[in-house]
Amino acid sequence: MEKVDNLYEGKAKIVYSTEDHNLVIQYFKDDATAFNAQKKGSIKDKGICNNQISAKLFQLLEKHNIPTHFVELLDEREMLVKKLDIIPVEFVVRNIAAGSIAKRLGLDEGVELLNPVVETYFKNDELGDPLINDDHIKVLNLASPEQIKICKDMVLKINTVLVNYFRALGIDLVDLKLEFGEHNGAILLGDEISPDTSRLW
Amino acid sequence: MEKVDNLYEGKAKIVYSTEDHNLVIQYFKDDATAFNAQKKGSIKDKGICNNQISAKLFQLLEKHNIPTHFVELLDEREMLVKKLDIIPVEFVVRNIAAGSIAKRLGLDEGVELLNPVVETYFKNDELGDPLINDDHIKVLNLASPEQIKICKDMVLKINTVLVNYFRALGIDLVDLKLEFGEHNGAILLGDEISPDTSRLW
Repeated sequence: MEKVDNLYEGKAKIVYSTEDHNLVIQYFKDDATAFNAQKKGSIKDKGICNNQISAKLFQLLEKHNIPTHFVELLDEREMLVKKLDIIPVEFVVRNIAAGSIAKRLGLDEGVELLNPVVETYFKNDELGDPLINDDHIKVLNLASPEQIKICKDMVLKINTVLVNYFRALGIDLVDLKLEFGEHNGAILLGDEISPDTSRLW
Repeated sequence: MEKVDNLYEGKAKIVYSTEDHNLVIQYFKDDATAFNAQKKGSIKDKGICNNQISAKLFQLLEKHNIPTHFVELLDEREMLVKKLDIIPVEFVVRNIAAGSIAKRLGLDEGVELLNPVVETYFKNDELGDPLINDDHIKVLNLASPEQIKICKDMVLKINTVLVNYFRALGIDLVDLKLEFGEHNGAILLGDEISPDTSRLW
């Protein structure tokens, strides 16, 4: 499968169309950003790592019957994925307090949460990806309540699979950002799963 | 009923115990704060207005079978209320975009929301009353999921009653902050309903 057009370039990836309108290619860049893109830089071979890690984790999730957009690895920096209508909501699931939740809620960093916490953020760089709730999602018409329910259920299932997977490697999955999209009427996990989108301790 | 001890002094009210351990007296002050208490001042007779308005609105809600802590007016600045175990969550219901929601979500001030939006905030001055969701409430153990469900249902019912009441007066209820507490196993509306806790246009 060959790249045709550059459809979208983000902070960490470029998405290319292919001859098949159902499929796109994700190209993983080395560019790194922090503090909501206020700091920029480049980490050598980060793109290669994230592509390989994401592929492995997408395959793991598929084995657990969680539908993802992953089709196959094409080369070290590229994967073929199903084209999604992205839901403009970032889902974050947290097992241990770290980063923004610790600061916002006055929790000590490293405190284990009694139950996984799922948060939704409005995917909007200009607004700084604000935390939102189900009513905000409805009012902004970002997704239907049914879609959000499906995504949240998948988030918890994905979290369980990955917590167990990393625990066996002696690693704590602290938190994880996930994005979903629609493909031929089904909701699939999209984007990537990598150290760029998770905290691993 | 006479005031016994000063139990708590807040930004706008003082709560006194009475000889009846089930009842307390709310005394409405003239003190005014803005920007999360960074600006302070005093507005003459504000306490009198807020006491009288709150009494009237609590009575209106009771007529609509919404349980509140209100018992009776004692004088111009004081009302007798049932003593509550306050749930440390502020409920905000919004009908029109204004203030923080407009800024956070990039909505124009004055835009009518397609449906009322209910938000929950962690009642914590030190943290600046952060926006929270149901999972945060569970993890912080602020209330049970059942209590939150009851409160949210009451919030929407209260909003409907008050929107209609103010509409008949030619006034738009833009948004409203509500607090709830437990009294002998029942959840009652507490605090006050006044121009200090709502936006009326």
